Amino acid sequence: MTAVALGLDFGTESVRALLADAAGTERGTAEAAYEHGQILRSLPGSDRPLPPRFALQCPRDWLDAAAVAVRAALAEAGLDPREVVGVGVDFTSCTMLPTTADGTPLCELPRFADQPHAWPKLWKHHGAVEQTARMNRIATERDEPFLKRYGGIIGLEWLQPKMLEAIEDAPEVAAAADVWLEGGDWFVWQLVGGPAEELPRSTCQAGYKALWSATEGYPSDAYFAAVHPGLAEAVRTKLPGRKLAPGQVAGRLTEQRAAALGLPAGIAVSAAVIDAHAAVPGVGAAGPGALVMVMGTSSCHMLNATEERFVPGLAGVVEGGILPDLFGYETGQAAVGDAFDWLRTLLGQDSFEAMAAAAAELPPGAEGVRCLDWFNGCRTPLMDGALRGTFSGLSLHAGPGHLYRALSEASACGLRWIVELLREGGVPIDRLIAAGGLPHHNRALVQVYADVLGEPIDVHPARQAPALGAAILGMVAAGRFDTVAATIEAMAAPVPAEARVEPDPHAAALYQSVYADYRRLAETFAPTAARQTS
Amino acid sequence: MTAVALGLDFGTESVRALLADAAGTERGTAEAAYEHGQILRSLPGSDRPLPPRFALQCPRDWLDAAAVAVRAALAEAGLDPREVVGVGVDFTSCTMLPTTADGTPLCELPRFADQPHAWPKLWKHHGAVEQTARMNRIATERDEPFLKRYGGIIGLEWLQPKMLEAIEDAPEVAAAADVWLEGGDWFVWQLVGGPAEELPRSTCQAGYKALWSATEGYPSDAYFAAVHPGLAEAVRTKLPGRKLAPGQVAGRLTEQRAAALGLPAGIAVSAAVIDAHAAVPGVGAAGPGALVMVMGTSSCHMLNATEERFVPGLAGVVEGGILPDLFGYETGQAAVGDAFDWLRTLLGQDSFEAMAAAAAELPPGAEGVRCLDWFNGCRTPLMDGALRGTFSGLSLHAGPGHLYRALSEASACGLRWIVELLREGGVPIDRLIAAGGLPHHNRALVQVYADVLGEPIDVHPARQAPALGAAILGMVAAGRFDTVAATIEAMAAPVPAEARVEPDPHAAALYQSVYADYRRLAETFAPTAARQTS
Repeated sequence: MTAVALGLDFGTESVRALLADAAGTERGTAEAAYEHGQILRSLPGSDRPLPPRFALQCPRDWLDAAAVAVRAALAEAGLDPREVVGVGVDFTSCTMLPTTADGTPLCELPRFADQPHAWPKLWKHHGAVEQTARMNRIATERDEPFLKRYGGIIGLEWLQPKMLEAIEDAPEVAAAADVWLEGGDWFVWQLVGGPAEELPRSTCQAGYKALWSATEGYPSDAYFAAVHPGLAEAVRTKLPGRKLAPGQVAGRLTEQRAAALGLPAGIAVSAAVIDAHAAVPGVGAAGPGALVMVMGTSSCHMLNATEERFVPGLAGVVEGGILPDLFGYETGQAAVGDAFDWLRTLLGQDSFEAMAAAAAELPPGAEGVRCLDWFNGCRTPLMDGALRGTFSGLSLHAGPGHLYRALSEASACGLRWIVELLREGGVPIDRLIAAGGLPHHNRALVQVYADVLGEPIDVHPARQAPALGAAILGMVAAGRFDTVAATIEAMAAPVPAEARVEPDPHAAALYQSVYADYRRLAETFAPTAARQTS
Repeated sequence: MTAVALGLDFGTESVRALLADAAGTERGTAEAAYEHGQILRSLPGSDRPLPPRFALQCPRDWLDAAAVAVRAALAEAGLDPREVVGVGVDFTSCTMLPTTADGTPLCELPRFADQPHAWPKLWKHHGAVEQTARMNRIATERDEPFLKRYGGIIGLEWLQPKMLEAIEDAPEVAAAADVWLEGGDWFVWQLVGGPAEELPRSTCQAGYKALWSATEGYPSDAYFAAVHPGLAEAVRTKLPGRKLAPGQVAGRLTEQRAAALGLPAGIAVSAAVIDAHAAVPGVGAAGPGALVMVMGTSSCHMLNATEERFVPGLAGVVEGGILPDLFGYETGQAAVGDAFDWLRTLLGQDSFEAMAAAAAELPPGAEGVRCLDWFNGCRTPLMDGALRGTFSGLSLHAGPGHLYRALSEASACGLRWIVELLREGGVPIDRLIAAGGLPHHNRALVQVYADVLGEPIDVHPARQAPALGAAILGMVAAGRFDTVAATIEAMAAPVPAEARVEPDPHAAALYQSVYADYRRLAETFAPTAARQTS
């Protein structure tokens, strides 16, 4: 009997369960959709339309879908459940909810069933626009020290703006809440039980999405009071629990949850991790210096380092944010797969085939067509969701291939800017690993990335890197290896030699001026871009 | 029996004949295609490919097609040919050719039949790229005074660059040429006969396309000699003839041509005019102050004034260039209908219908999407064919309607810039008249123009304004009215009240910032734009 760990990967529409053994072999996997999916129009059982920009979920769906997925994965694997020694959980973030002291979601109380603010707000819930703007204005006026860890900006999707929205728009819900917490932390709490004072909060979610740091804790009471006295009180009294890095033991699986999931009681459960961040162990990035690029609808580029540096424009740097004992850096590009999908639709193309073929015929630089890939704002380094995209250098000869190629090159230039920023900020990068679905579908894009960066990129073969990363964190929690790094190295597949995309030196030379043009365009359309180093 | 004039409108693929009487009634019209059309690939009877960027025509086609078209128009009109009292000719320009002293095109000499430089070079022939660049460089270095009349730039399509190309690339052709001249002037010379020394050269073509002015003549011998001694000699000795403004009498129709065309011998023939410029009398713009916008593939905006002003960036100001005794100003936008066609194709749309409908649903400003309409360079005021177009402000929500609307608004902003430039340069504009095919197909675009300008625009009903303008010039030459203005006023249809497009004050107010954005974009992508006034 060999030890197996379970990874649970909670996405926006479904949860995936993945069982991997200590040698990294995937033994079984299954996916189960949430009964209510994303709740965007009206609450279950109600016709009343939700306010604009609301995006909610149902917490019962997470438990139910997890039970279905775990049982299906076990069945597929043909495993004796007793072989499972640990559970890891990754989750979208910041997906958050209010609960009573015993962990009951407020939306499950009959009196709040029709109150949207009592339901989990999904990461993409954008109801707190005004609150976020106010929190940013006041933080900037007060020159709050925590801003330096977040590139100077509090995100619209983060915890406290969503809390403040409820405090202001649904005071009865806020008053009834004993605990505010992330969906991932709530799920882990459900698995391990215990009182609210000891609920396991992930340093990953707290660090990247709730303004917390290991050395400074949450921002000061004075800051939150300046925003709203109720917010200060809520941060002071309604965020109980222990902070644990992903891979640290949150607790042991309770009898009740073990029965529901078909697993043995008492096995180790890891603290939660944000879904994208779980890809870092999932692709085998055990130590500092490997930039893991999770490329999909948007891209999240993560990196561990041994030191903390405050680099302007980074989305976040969190001690133990991705793995214990390392400083986790998070950066991102707001529209990648999304931008390609948008362009395809805009140009009336049924598939990418013709565009990609035409783009491949063009030389680097797309015959002068340039793009700024800010179609959903700029995440790193400008942290400005209001910025917009551009195509320039357009002649009457420009076709879909020119725009497709220019977009690919712009995306690569955006990545190069991030890499340069990190290195110049003193954060070493010695390897680039591409993960997620996009690099498998669009190898030409990875080639453009390698050429624009002038460095090789390893395309990791894992199709479910976050779920595998969660399983690895479950194995870490189970303590089957001496170190976190040893666990990752044993379980994550290495990148085969043929999956390394080498840069073409000729193209790399031609891209120097394309990159210079990109930076000039950025300065033109975002005056703040000129202030960024590199 | 009422007096009738014939207008011959020589286009790129065909010639149109139009018969109009002294009251302006169109009595008959017919079109005839050139047998060889545009000669782009190889000369007639040859398989040898032409060099790149060559575009030639066959002079015999002009005579043959004109005979067919005139006879068909007479037949349609049921006219006694003796009613025709005058002929006007408009022609593409600079379409030019070398001839012997008796007017025989060199391409008709057997020894030059296979020599491309012996054939008429069509206006769009772009073989003289290097020559044009050199002429501009030397003119700028010498600070040549003629440059001020042309916005500082000699055009790639003009007469002397095309001559110089032949002098350098086909010296045997250049040596055999006794006369270099415009196609329009050659055709008029064919109609009226006479020696080369007295051939009727249009001030319109000479002024706008051959660097000539009534007060200064051609540029100095010293300038041309600095470019190439052979060019100096050719300008000195091979551009014989009399300069005549459009509407002035070039001569009388010869017996031979009268027989070929089926017209009475001895009737008056007007000096030629450039095709677009013929629209000015064609839409009834008899005096100063009416900006006639001939909108099509590209747009040519023409204006008469009583005074000569040197406005930076104007394509040309020519005394008697459009009508006798007035200063004709020419400005242009390089891609209008072309840009819409390109966008439709780029976006994979079968027709404009869906895009236009979506655009109409959007507010002024296209929800932040902006465009710089330089998809074929910028003609007025930057005179730079190398500039390129831009779309900015693009989000993932931008669809074809956004791009279509942004392009319409950019085109309008380009026009507003020209209008402001003229007015600030001291050239009055008191009326805007849209002509050409585009305003009839795309009335929404005219509305955007009116809104961005904040002024009414009259859409002239004439579908064949240049051909009618040519006929009016033929009537002017015939002297049937006391003045040019009286002729135009009698023959050109007035604009009906319902063809006036009034600006919407609300939209006009919103467009102020769109125009400011356009000018900022122009400065960003063309540093020289900042030097233009207004």
